[in-house]
Amino acid sequence: MDSTTSQNNIFPKGQLGSVDYFTGTVWVTPLLADDGVNHFSIGNVVFEAGARANWHTHPRGQVLIVTDGQGFYQEKGKPAQPIKKGDVINIPPHVEHWHGASANSAMTHIAITNFEKEEFVTWLTPVTDAEYKEVNLTK
Amino acid sequence: MDSTTSQNNIFPKGQLGSVDYFTGTVWVTPLLADDGVNHFSIGNVVFEAGARANWHTHPRGQVLIVTDGQGFYQEKGKPAQPIKKGDVINIPPHVEHWHGASANSAMTHIAITNFEKEEFVTWLTPVTDAEYKEVNLTK
Repeated sequence: MDSTTSQNNIFPKGQLGSVDYFTGTVWVTPLLADDGVNHFSIGNVVFEAGARANWHTHPRGQVLIVTDGQGFYQEKGKPAQPIKKGDVINIPPHVEHWHGASANSAMTHIAITNFEKEEFVTWLTPVTDAEYKEVNLTK
Repeated sequence: MDSTTSQNNIFPKGQLGSVDYFTGTVWVTPLLADDGVNHFSIGNVVFEAGARANWHTHPRGQVLIVTDGQGFYQEKGKPAQPIKKGDVINIPPHVEHWHGASANSAMTHIAITNFEKEEFVTWLTPVTDAEYKEVNLTK
C-alpha cells in the first residue's frame, strides 16, 4: 500500500529524506531558500505512515503547517501531541523535539525554518521504535 | 455557484476580507502572528473567482504558497503572471503588486508576510475592472 496516495499532493513528491535524519520513508521538496530577505527556508515534507524525523533542535525555531494526514509533535520530556491537517505548530528555538506521521496514517506538512546565519537545525538521535510505539499506543 | 467548494479546504474559511483592501469575495484565516521569534505572520486566503487584492506593497516582502486553483500575480508595469496550485511566489520589498483569482477559477494561497517593526503592508488603489479584464484576456 502506498500510504501517500491519500495525501494532499500540492507539490511534487521531492527527494527521499536521508536515513541520517529520518526513520521510515520521507519525501522532502524544497520550496524556498533563505535569500537574505526572507530569513527562513520553506519545504514540504511527506511522512509515510510510521515515518518520523530524528530528535532535533532549531536555533531560531520552526513553524509547521500540517496540510494533510495525522501525526505527532513531541518535545523532550513532554507527552506527544497528536497533530492533523490544518494544525499550525510553532516550535521554539533550542527545544529538542521530533515530528512525524502516526503508525497508521501518513502526514504532510510545510516547514518554515528560521535561520541563524547559516544554521537552522541540529540533528540528534533517532526516535526509537520503543519511543514511537509508546506514543502511538497512548494517543 | 459557490466557487470555493472546489478549493482545497485545509483551514476553516475565516472572515470576509475588507472591501477597503479587496475586490470580490475573499476569505482570510489568520494562522500565526508575528511573535518576536518569527518575524512574519502567516495567513490563509481564499479568493473566489473574480476576486483580487488591491495594489499594495510590503516593507520586507511576502511569500505566497498557492495551495489550490488558479489566479494571477502582477507587479506594476509588468505583465501579469498566471499562478496555480503548487507555485511559490517570492515578492520583493517595496514592489507594488496585486494577486488574486482568475475570472473563472477560485485561488487559495498561504501568505507569509515579513514584518518591519509593526509594519507589513501598505494598501493602495483597487485593481480596476478594466485592468483585471485585460489580464484575464491575455493570459
